[in-house]
Formats: sequence, structure tokens, C-alpha cells
Amino acid sequence: MNRRTFLGSMLAVPAFAQPSAPRVNGARLRERIEALSIFGRPDGGTFADGVSRVAYSDADVAGRAYVMKLIEGLGLKPRVDAAGNIFALRPGTNGTLPPVLFGSHIDSVPNGGNFDGDLGSLGAIEVLQTMNEAHIATRRGVELVVWQNEEGYAFNNGLAGSRAAAGHLEAGELDAVWNGMKKSDAIRKIGGNPERIAEAKRGPGTFACYLELHIEQGGTLERAGIPIGVVEGIVAIDRYDVEVRGFANHAGTTPMAERRDALVAASMLTIAVNDTVRAEPGKQVGTVGQLNVIPNVPNIVPGTVRMVVELRDLDAKKIAAIGERLQARAREIAAKTGTEIVMRPAAHHDAALANPQVQSSIEAACAGLGLKSQRLPSGAGHDAQMMALLGPMGMIFVPSVRGISHSPLEFTRWEDCARGADVLMATVLDWAMR
Amino acid sequence: MNRRTFLGSMLAVPAFAQPSAPRVNGARLRERIEALSIFGRPDGGTFADGVSRVAYSDADVAGRAYVMKLIEGLGLKPRVDAAGNIFALRPGTNGTLPPVLFGSHIDSVPNGGNFDGDLGSLGAIEVLQTMNEAHIATRRGVELVVWQNEEGYAFNNGLAGSRAAAGHLEAGELDAVWNGMKKSDAIRKIGGNPERIAEAKRGPGTFACYLELHIEQGGTLERAGIPIGVVEGIVAIDRYDVEVRGFANHAGTTPMAERRDALVAASMLTIAVNDTVRAEPGKQVGTVGQLNVIPNVPNIVPGTVRMVVELRDLDAKKIAAIGERLQARAREIAAKTGTEIVMRPAAHHDAALANPQVQSSIEAACAGLGLKSQRLPSGAGHDAQMMALLGPMGMIFVPSVRGISHSPLEFTRWEDCARGADVLMATVLDWAMR
Repeated sequence: MNRRTFLGSMLAVPAFAQPSAPRVNGARLRERIEALSIFGRPDGGTFADGVSRVAYSDADVAGRAYVMKLIEGLGLKPRVDAAGNIFALRPGTNGTLPPVLFGSHIDSVPNGGNFDGDLGSLGAIEVLQTMNEAHIATRRGVELVVWQNEEGYAFNNGLAGSRAAAGHLEAGELDAVWNGMKKSDAIRKIGGNPERIAEAKRGPGTFACYLELHIEQGGTLERAGIPIGVVEGIVAIDRYDVEVRGFANHAGTTPMAERRDALVAASMLTIAVNDTVRAEPGKQVGTVGQLNVIPNVPNIVPGTVRMVVELRDLDAKKIAAIGERLQARAREIAAKTGTEIVMRPAAHHDAALANPQVQSSIEAACAGLGLKSQRLPSGAGHDAQMMALLGPMGMIFVPSVRGISHSPLEFTRWEDCARGADVLMATVLDWAMR
Repeated sequence: MNRRTFLGSMLAVPAFAQPSAPRVNGARLRERIEALSIFGRPDGGTFADGVSRVAYSDADVAGRAYVMKLIEGLGLKPRVDAAGNIFALRPGTNGTLPPVLFGSHIDSVPNGGNFDGDLGSLGAIEVLQTMNEAHIATRRGVELVVWQNEEGYAFNNGLAGSRAAAGHLEAGELDAVWNGMKKSDAIRKIGGNPERIAEAKRGPGTFACYLELHIEQGGTLERAGIPIGVVEGIVAIDRYDVEVRGFANHAGTTPMAERRDALVAASMLTIAVNDTVRAEPGKQVGTVGQLNVIPNVPNIVPGTVRMVVELRDLDAKKIAAIGERLQARAREIAAKTGTEIVMRPAAHHDAALANPQVQSSIEAACAGLGLKSQRLPSGAGHDAQMMALLGPMGMIFVPSVRGISHSPLEFTRWEDCARGADVLMATVLDWAMR
């Protein structure tokens, strides 16, 4: 090619350096996060009272309509796929290249906060609007996505939209019933088409990379005073259903030495989880979050306890080893307390590692914006982990005040929200120009 | 007086030696325990499926009618007092002396057994019938009682009939509502008269002694191979409502070092209860029977745990001291786990000691029948503890197979039931002749 042609192609596909990436409109982003918070807000409450926008609820449908109106305002046509995910493609100059995909979700847990998912979804819209306003043409298309039912409160099965896109729906999942609603009908309610849900599947290579801006949901960044977290990956999770079988008997008439107290054994195991997880260095966590006593009355020695042990780390082998140590501890505790302890592996989620080039790109974006950043694992699951199955994935974290999430107290400083969206903007552009 | 007059008075009031006390009809006692078990039996079940004869239920009313028919068969007229307790007095030769009072209850917990209360009630009827058949005249009257609502499943407030008799009803108790039923209406349903409930009160000295035959509900007698337990008293009970306040947060994103896990703290306290109670010799018991985790989902670090600690011993000072030690342990655990633990005394029941002369009389009855006996505390509450407020009290325990009670598996060997009724017979006669 001659120089003119080369320059012409350069103009059509400008080599975008991060420092020149436009900044988002932080005030507008805040307004929209506040506007979205209306849908699912407790009666008579304020923004600070949080939100209950459970997937497939009327509030969810209303929130999705609000988001789609914003997308139309960008001059784009929202597309609802067969699974009910919302997409919007801003075409690039080269229509043959896979786009940069980015977004998050807007469903919430009951009594949740206004940042989890919302920031990444509305931040993605803000990136597109900023591109429009700066008249930026990208080489690749940039594609926004708002995944449906990330939280999984509905049907107790989250990442529903991203799993459909990754082809990871479970057998019979559409027949599941929750609150009297069949999942296929729930998907119809949000505009999906359960009969054609296979069409929601995206193949590997259908995006250049997947990016997601999200609140940290932990307190690491805030404590370190660092505004941007570069996610190393989403941790592996091992979940065990534990049943402790003792013998229920009268709490007044059963001598201590004769007891087979399931709660005493369960308490020992709960402490063993805590101690074993803390016994070695690293960021692994272990939790007994659910524990039910049967029959659970003050004057009966507990006969049965059912509890859930959950272990998380980026290194799946590490938590598998901790799980084995806990199985051994459970046997010791059972022998000591005269109980039987059955600790059954109930779920395993693989770790989803972020792509090293995407991480470098996010770090470069931070450097260009003069923002400190820190690498850290995501202890929470995200739709990004499903996208990691299909292509390069990266996530941008911003600080959660006091590390609080899934609570009306969930908060991220507005300035941090805007900085996170700036980093998303620059990273999207970096990849969109490749 | 001359010898003849003396002999004459001896004939009217024979000096009844235990060996000559007639033996009860064990087969008939068994038949009646089986017959009573029909009222409240699960549909299509057998005797072994236990009974749900909760106080004031239709099954309770039917069971009471059955008992009153048996009383009429003795040639006695059952009297239902204003509280709904059933009494039947077999007069003595000296109408001015307070009678020997004995009996138990026939209400059950839901899904309970066929011996708790039933044995003592039907055993008392068997004693009266055996007296009739042996044409025994007693100096004092002998008075049977079947107390209403001992278990307290209804209205969560037991010993209802015996408390009315002891003048220990609580303020406003008759206005309590349970399952849509007002307590005053419940008492009307079983033939009581709530407007005149004060008339159910018995003064001190209105009985010579109170005796109750009951299953042990623990495994001490069975393990020792001893057929009769002589109750030393009914234990004191201290109950504490405990609230452990941590901080609920995401189980994936909250590093171990940052957690204030209410369940870890509650587990430490549960083990502290167990260890502290076992740390010293004696028969004291301590139980965490009820524990509720909030929010109780696998992926949230528990924010709050509410639990009930219960301590029992014949020596109220001993459990008070254990309670103080646990308060200190709770403070240590709170400091160690970054939680707050509030341990509030919620209930105190005084111990009710059995009368030494009544205990000796029961032991003499056993000796006369060639039965081994053993003194032991009652870890469970009984109507007898209310009667101990009014006069000398004693209880006769028979072995519970495997120590199981409040369960369809509750069982006492039929031979042991008969032996217990024999001991009741001899003890009643001993006191009735005094």
C-alpha cells in the first residue's frame, strides 16, 4: 500500500493512546445509578434504603426497561437474546472483527445495595455515551451486555444469563419452579424465548475480550487506599453439605456423659473450618454461613445439625486440600462426640483466571489516568467467570466502603465510580483499537 | 383407753405394713395405657407410633373423657375444678384429715410417647381400683388428680393445672392466645371455669403428701439395672437468651482477618457451655438446644446468632456459679472474635426438693416389694414441683428404655410399669394410714 492509503487506514483506525481516552461524565453516571435505584426501592424509602430487584420480578422488568431506554438514547437498538440478556452493539469500522464485550447485571439480592451490578451496567452505558459524544470510531465494535439473573436469588441458580451464553445451562433448568413461577415463564417475562434458548449461546472467539467493572464487595482496596483493583481471577468454590447426626433427647434428663449432641459437634466443626483455613498464609476463605438445628428447642439436646461449609481460593488445589483436612477433622470430632458426620461435596466451581494481557491493559489504563491499582482475586462470583470460558476476560474493581455488599449499606464513593468507568473506557478503547 | 377400744381403733385404722400391700393388676394397667393411646394416635398408626395429645385438643378432651369413665367405674365421681384439673377422692375413715394426693397428667407433646404422664395417671387409677378390690379402708382419704396441660406445648406455658392449684398463674395468663384459641376458652373446652379459676387454688396443708409415678425420661435407671428411682427433687433451671452480634458480609470477599463471624463466636460459646458444665463433678447439665443463624445463607458470613443456654441442677447456687463463669467466657470470646455477646437471664425456676420422709417411705415400699431403688434428681419439670410448694412431695421413677422420651420411641417395660404402680400403691397406703 502507498503512504496515503496507509494514513487513510490509520485515520479510520486511530492508534488510540490511553492518556487521550475521554473521561466519562461522573455526575451523569451518579444520576443514572440513583434513577435505577427507584425500581425495587422499599416503599417510602430513599437511595440509602437499598433495593430489592430480584431477577424476573416486576422491579427487574422495570429496571431493564429503564436500561433499554438509555440504550435507545445512545442511538442503538437493544437486542434481547433468547435467554433474556440485553445486548447493544456499537459497530466498529471493521465489521469482521469480534467486538469488545463489556457490561454487568442489574438484578439484586433481596434487601441489597445499589452498586452491585448496577455500576458495571450503567458504567458501560456511560462509556458508550462518552464515545458518542467524543465522536470516537473504533476498529472493533464495542458491545454492551446486561446479563439476566446474576445473583441467583431467583431459582437459587445464578449467572443464569451468562451461563446460557457460555452453553452451561443445567439439564432441566428451564423447568425449575421458584415462587410458583416456572423458569421458562420467568425468561419469557423478561422478553426471552426459552424454546430457542440454545441460540443465546456464544461461541469462543465471538468477542475480543470481556470486561466488567464491579464494586469489590470486600474491604481490601479501601483499607489499602487504592482506587482500582485489577482482578487476577474469580476464585474456585468448593461447597460441602454437612449433616451431623447425634441423638435428640431431653435436655434435663440426659446426663452430659450420655449425650450425642449434634450442635456441640457442629460447633467444633465450625471452629475447625475457621482454624484450618487461617492456619496457612494466603487469601483463601472458609465459611459456615448456614446452620440449622433439629429440633431446635431449648430443652432438647440437638439431634441433627445440617450446615454448609464453603471454601474459596484462586487455587482450586489449595481448597481441595483444606477440604480433605476438614474431612479428617470431621472424623475426629464425630469419634469424640459420639456423632456421625457426613460431609458431602455439594458443588465445585472452577476458578476463572483473568487474561494476563487484559490485566496489563487495565493497569496501563490506570497508569494513564494517574490512578494507583492493585491486583487482587475476586472472592465473589461474577458473569465474567462464564465469559472466561469463551475468551480473554478481565475485571475492574472499585472500593466498597467498609467492604459492605449485599446490604442497603453497600456504597462506593461517587468519585470512585467515575474513576472505575474511566478505566473501563480506556481499557475498552485499547482493545477496540487492536 | 382399754385394750378393746385400742384394738377397735387399730382395726379402723390398721397399721398397714408394706409387705401386705396388695399388688396392682399389671395387665390391666397395660391395657389402659394402650387404650388411652388411641386418643391422639397418628392416622393409621399403632401404639409404637406415639401420640399427639396436646392440651386442649380434641384428642385431649377425648382422653380426659376416657379417664373420667374409668374413675366412674371405681364408683367415684370425678370432679373437674375451675382450672380443668380432674380430681377423684376416695374417702378415708377420718374425714377431717387431709388426703394423700397422687396422680400425673395425660396431655403430651406433639409426636410424643405413651408413657410420659399416662403411666402416673393410669397407675393412680390402678392403685384406687386395687384398693377397692382388696376392700381396703384407709384412715385418710386418697385423692387422685389428673393435671391439665403439664407439657406446656399449648400456650408455651406448662404445669398449667398444678400452677393454678398452687396459686402460681401468671398475670394475664388466661388472655394468652395460642393457635387462635384464648386460654380462658381452652379451659372452658375441658370443663373448667376461667371466671372462678381462683377457686382451683389449694392451700398448704390440704394434702398429707403428694405422690407422682413417672417415667425417668433419662437412662440412669436402665443403665444401672435398677427398677425404681426415688426422686431427690426437681432441678432448678436457669435459662439465658444469648445474642451474638457480629457483622454480616460476603463470604467470598471478606478476608478471614476482617471477619466478625457471629457463628464462630456462638460455636465457641456452645463448646464453653459443654466444657464448663462438665468441668466439675456432679449431675448438673447444660445445653444449647436452640440456635438460629441470621441471615443463614451459605455465602454470607453470619451477622447475628440467637441461642438459648439452659443449665439445670438440684443446687441452684451451683448453676448460678456456672452461669457467671459462662458470662466471663462470653466476654473473652466476644473480645477474641470482634463480636458483641449479650447473655441475658431469661428464666429461673427454683429447685423443688422431695420430702425426706416421703423418700424414706418410697424406699421402704421398695424394700417391702424386694425391689432395688436409687435416689436421683429429676432433670425434667413435673407438676410435683408445684405441689412441693404446698406440702411434702415425692416422686417414683421407672426406667425409660434407652432414656428416650418426648418421642414415639418412648418406652418403659410393662413389668417396670407394674412395679412402679406397686410402689405407688404401698407408699400411698403408708401415708394414708398415718
